[in-house]
Amino acid sequence: MNPASASAQARLQVIHQHLSIQPCFHRHAIDNDKPTGPADLARERANASFKVEDMTEILFGGKENVVARSLAFQMIQRDPDLRMRQGHNYDMSRSEEREQTLRQVARLIQLRRMPGNNLLSRALTMAMSYYSEAFWMMFVHDVLFKQAFTYCATPEQQDKWMADIEDWRVMGCFAMTELGHSSNLPGLETTSTFDRSTDEFVIHSPTQTSTKWWIGMAGRTATHTVAMCRTLVDGKDYGPNWFYVPLRDRKTGHLLPGIVCGDVGQKASRQGLDTGYIQFTQVRIPRGNMLQRWASFTPQGVFKPSPNPVLAYSPLTTERFATLNSHKVTLAQSLTIAVRYGAVRRQGTRDEQIIDYQTHQANLMPGLAFIHLLSIVERDVCEKWDEVQEMAHTNVEQFLHELPDQHGIAASFKAALSWYVTEALESCRRSCGGHAYSAYNAFPGLIGDYNIVTIGGGDNVVLMQQSARYLISSLKKAMTGHQVHGSVDYMNAHMYFSSVTKTSFQDPRDLLNHEFFIDALTWACLKKATGLKKVLENAGTHFEEVWIENQTELIRLADINTWRYFLVVFHRVIEREKERKPEVYALFKRMGLLMGTFILKRYMDVFLEEGYFDGSHAKFIRELHLDQCKDLRKEAVALVDSWAIPDFALQAPIGKYDGDIYPAYFAAVNAAQQSFEPTDYWLKYAGPLLNAPRPTDKEPIAPHSHVDQPTSVTNRKKARVPMEKENDALWV
Amino acid sequence: MNPASASAQARLQVIHQHLSIQPCFHRHAIDNDKPTGPADLARERANASFKVEDMTEILFGGKENVVARSLAFQMIQRDPDLRMRQGHNYDMSRSEEREQTLRQVARLIQLRRMPGNNLLSRALTMAMSYYSEAFWMMFVHDVLFKQAFTYCATPEQQDKWMADIEDWRVMGCFAMTELGHSSNLPGLETTSTFDRSTDEFVIHSPTQTSTKWWIGMAGRTATHTVAMCRTLVDGKDYGPNWFYVPLRDRKTGHLLPGIVCGDVGQKASRQGLDTGYIQFTQVRIPRGNMLQRWASFTPQGVFKPSPNPVLAYSPLTTERFATLNSHKVTLAQSLTIAVRYGAVRRQGTRDEQIIDYQTHQANLMPGLAFIHLLSIVERDVCEKWDEVQEMAHTNVEQFLHELPDQHGIAASFKAALSWYVTEALESCRRSCGGHAYSAYNAFPGLIGDYNIVTIGGGDNVVLMQQSARYLISSLKKAMTGHQVHGSVDYMNAHMYFSSVTKTSFQDPRDLLNHEFFIDALTWACLKKATGLKKVLENAGTHFEEVWIENQTELIRLADINTWRYFLVVFHRVIEREKERKPEVYALFKRMGLLMGTFILKRYMDVFLEEGYFDGSHAKFIRELHLDQCKDLRKEAVALVDSWAIPDFALQAPIGKYDGDIYPAYFAAVNAAQQSFEPTDYWLKYAGPLLNAPRPTDKEPIAPHSHVDQPTSVTNRKKARVPMEKENDALWV
Repeated sequence: MNPASASAQARLQVIHQHLSIQPCFHRHAIDNDKPTGPADLARERANASFKVEDMTEILFGGKENVVARSLAFQMIQRDPDLRMRQGHNYDMSRSEEREQTLRQVARLIQLRRMPGNNLLSRALTMAMSYYSEAFWMMFVHDVLFKQAFTYCATPEQQDKWMADIEDWRVMGCFAMTELGHSSNLPGLETTSTFDRSTDEFVIHSPTQTSTKWWIGMAGRTATHTVAMCRTLVDGKDYGPNWFYVPLRDRKTGHLLPGIVCGDVGQKASRQGLDTGYIQFTQVRIPRGNMLQRWASFTPQGVFKPSPNPVLAYSPLTTERFATLNSHKVTLAQSLTIAVRYGAVRRQGTRDEQIIDYQTHQANLMPGLAFIHLLSIVERDVCEKWDEVQEMAHTNVEQFLHELPDQHGIAASFKAALSWYVTEALESCRRSCGGHAYSAYNAFPGLIGDYNIVTIGGGDNVVLMQQSARYLISSLKKAMTGHQVHGSVDYMNAHMYFSSVTKTSFQDPRDLLNHEFFIDALTWACLKKATGLKKVLENAGTHFEEVWIENQTELIRLADINTWRYFLVVFHRVIEREKERKPEVYALFKRMGLLMGTFILKRYMDVFLEEGYFDGSHAKFIRELHLDQCKDLRKEAVALVDSWAIPDFALQAPIGKYDGDIYPAYFAAVNAAQQSFEPTDYWLKYAGPLLNAPRPTDKEPIAPHSHVDQPTSVTNRKKARVPMEKENDALWV
Repeated sequence: MNPASASAQARLQVIHQHLSIQPCFHRHAIDNDKPTGPADLARERANASFKVEDMTEILFGGKENVVARSLAFQMIQRDPDLRMRQGHNYDMSRSEEREQTLRQVARLIQLRRMPGNNLLSRALTMAMSYYSEAFWMMFVHDVLFKQAFTYCATPEQQDKWMADIEDWRVMGCFAMTELGHSSNLPGLETTSTFDRSTDEFVIHSPTQTSTKWWIGMAGRTATHTVAMCRTLVDGKDYGPNWFYVPLRDRKTGHLLPGIVCGDVGQKASRQGLDTGYIQFTQVRIPRGNMLQRWASFTPQGVFKPSPNPVLAYSPLTTERFATLNSHKVTLAQSLTIAVRYGAVRRQGTRDEQIIDYQTHQANLMPGLAFIHLLSIVERDVCEKWDEVQEMAHTNVEQFLHELPDQHGIAASFKAALSWYVTEALESCRRSCGGHAYSAYNAFPGLIGDYNIVTIGGGDNVVLMQQSARYLISSLKKAMTGHQVHGSVDYMNAHMYFSSVTKTSFQDPRDLLNHEFFIDALTWACLKKATGLKKVLENAGTHFEEVWIENQTELIRLADINTWRYFLVVFHRVIEREKERKPEVYALFKRMGLLMGTFILKRYMDVFLEEGYFDGSHAKFIRELHLDQCKDLRKEAVALVDSWAIPDFALQAPIGKYDGDIYPAYFAAVNAAQQSFEPTDYWLKYAGPLLNAPRPTDKEPIAPHSHVDQPTSVTNRKKARVPMEKENDALWV
């Protein structure tokens, strides 16, 4: 040991002696600071019935995706342009968050421009969906903006524009919603008026309510937009079409003449995402900037309207399918935190793990089963939608034939599932008690971010009615002898189900078969749909009023139908995994049955009201569901581990992988405390208040002279409140 | 006209000509900018069946309170120290919000110190509960901190300390919860060890998890705290008691030796409220700083433990009753916004008021009825609690006799009603569509603030179990021949109800009587309670396990029991209003019946499962409920007006009193946009990305040379995208 380090050693020794205190007597010894969490989680992990890696592979669709995802997280954590330099964004201002997001976007695009690994590039974007609003900036451009071109631009227009769009040499936004209208697209006010004299369209926001609103990237970022405008040609209104309109100078970033874009400011969440508004004042664009795949001009200059207005809305269907990823990402993070915390947090008379409470299990296990099923279902329905999207380019007739079912699935999956996910997130939050109120444990952000899903991208109530409309019309078709296909194919069996009045349930073993659940839900859908169809048919010219009078039940029909199809898809797909990983398959089956009882319980009043189940069935299903929750609780920690969300991305110390939660949580909180000194405003406002002269008495206040004096003053060198003059003692 | 103004006039004329644009043809004329909202609200107001002023008087308990409240709001709006100087806190940093809150608190105390109007002073505090976190700072000191002394300090201690506490010459906080323990109070780790040699207590935080956590005002503000510590005297652990401990120097604001207080930083909401943590390291206080009303020392120096540990928890009962005000304030604001927006917003195929949708009515009307009933119920139960609190000083035996029922009511009203209010707030939020996502429309704040109510101040799941325990033990008493009293007095009739198996419902007119609902709920409570009591009695030594296995049903019992008692109190009290204002009384009766069907619907599966109701009853009640909602919709705007929340306090332009919502909303958003120039970070990150040379081609890119040239270039002086060189055109 050299002299320098010897002296350092000695100094440390002295400091240590200064700091060491005689522990006063207390039941909880210093040893108790040793955390119980790591052992708790290790035990939970050892007890799972399956290998986490096997589940991870299934969740992410194969080993190469898992590897790419893990590399992507590694890159995010390392790259100073991708990672959050403060470790999280909880203490940043809106403008700092905005800067960080744009920095991340720019870096992602740079990485994407490098030749090579597409898989990693895709994985990076997906990993960002767990981490940063940069994902949503990418989404606005790569999905919403771009799809307007994919669907609605002619091949020539695509040739002209697509290379720059794909390479982010323009930054695009998607201007549909307006301040005064959103769900009601035909009510949009922005106009595109064709000026034949100049061969231009004039884009105009005629009123304040016509301001394009909630437009991602419009506020401070985008250079271009596609804008949905009601098209006026030769004095005639042809309804909404898409127009490609520049917003900002690509070099200087300045707004172009006639364009006003602004920031919509503070939101419930996602402050890092630029959300803006746009007002057009007589902005002229060449005729060729109208996306003319469907509506178009003939060479003779005659305007040809779109064969079907829904064609312009196709990007919305993609957007709705994309919400399935939001459901998954948000809930997977929330459950990772809640389940681990539930296993680590000890409370109650026997200091038990709180995840052993029945209420805790009932709160968390359905959501846990749900996201695992959803990851299977999502892949299947999105693959189908990809196929159908292809048809838009190869076989428009077939595309239009498939579209209503796809639209119905997308709308109801977005709406019904997001209602449920909102509940599931709230359950996760409540399961973490007070610590979920801390921003440093991610919940405020996760729930705030998800908040928009139920009301944006098509309001849920509107979408569920679209789905109900599709269901009623499909049943009508089926009942007039036409085959219906896709998610409503069960309606072809309406005759059979109309004769069923109650469940065939006789033996508890019936509940080990998923067909039992699907039969019950099929019956419920047909029962509701048939009844509502009749009422609506009898409405005659009062159709709209009668619709409104039955709105809650129509939505309930759409809701049950969604969950039915969710289970149908799940069971169809999971059979493929049967051979590969038997334990994982078995676990999926258990989760499928748990979701089955959960859904029946959820709509039990429908079954009881109609007599399909009786009280004893209801009780049996309720109790079985609780047993299933208790059973899944054993797998819970391993199941959330399967989502493989690294701690740095989770950004919630109480959900840490190793279970040693309190020091990390304390450190996160303490890092936000810049100083322990009194604040200026304390000195300014509290100081005078505390030290103002008493109005009633200028001498020492009587009660304050009766200070309980310590009987002994020995041994008082330890940390102690300083004694002040009696009349102003601090602590008496 | 003088020459100067003539020239100004001329200038204006010229500017006007410059600005005036030839409107291009569009269906929506400029006239459409005229808002429809004001007329909509005026019509709604004209159609109400009652006078708003009459309702307001009842809600706030008499005309003098209404006048004081209105004066209080006037003072808040005027006084630059009370009002939010930016109009709201949506764009403030955490530290700016903190400063604002403390400024408001200081001003409120100054106003309170002025001799005179107590009524106005109280009204000011209550008005602040609609407006600012200052209310919660006051609450921590005036209620939590102070009540520890009221309940647990001896008269001598009160003489000594109370004057300064009441006058805010100390600022106190309430240190109970710890990082590692909250609901489990006997598990608290902080110790107070009696040192007989110095006649002092040593307050110590032995572990990191023992850090006092979530302590309002501790982080940056309070000078003192009451701390709950496990009391160790002569080597024996006497469980938790309260200790009065100074934290900061009252003059300098510096932390005292041995004390570390810090800020817990960013939360889901209420950033303006200082929330902190405290760590004690061997802090010595005189023996006399233990609050010794219950636990105490004899003159011989022998420690006498408290006769009943619940005595130390009484301030918590007050805290729970106080949440009723949170329910009311938060929901009243949310409904004011949602109902007015629902009446003003027009959407759908016929541009109808969205409040005419059945789903909208089903979402909003139960909450609207609920807060009106709650305002009646709250006053009654809080008056009763005030009476009982008096007994703590006059008749301790009687106090202890009443306490379990009061505790049961407070716990379950806090928990069950806050679960419901959370749902109701979410319904309000969703009813406002995307605009609820904007911070400028108050919902993110309102929901964020309320967020803590379900998990703080006693976790709901824990409180509901306490209530269930009380119910089971009360039933046990009643079944062994003892009279039970208070909220559970119905249990005395257990024999009668045990013979009832189904409803007596025969005629729809039965449902016009509130006793029908109370009977059904009484039956359900006794049915559930009897069953659960039996199961628990059979559990023997496995009581705790069996409790956990029945936890969800025990909580459901407590839930139904809460709603039953809520209706009971409401109907008892409202009869007093009968003579005074017949239209208001009639309206309250309608709202009472609406809540009745709402609650039966809510627990319908219990009734169906047990056969009390059959399917046809269920359907009837469901349909009746929707009719009641449709009926109440006619009164909705006037009902929210009755809460008389001024626009400046509502802080949500879409809920503005006059219905002219869009200009105000737009103005609020635009005020947050500091500049329309490109940001520095845009130039840094987006600029290079957009303008990077294309990797594949150094010459003009082929697709970009096919610019659709306008066929005519006349008349192109209007706002127009500047043309760039072809190879870098902005808009092609």
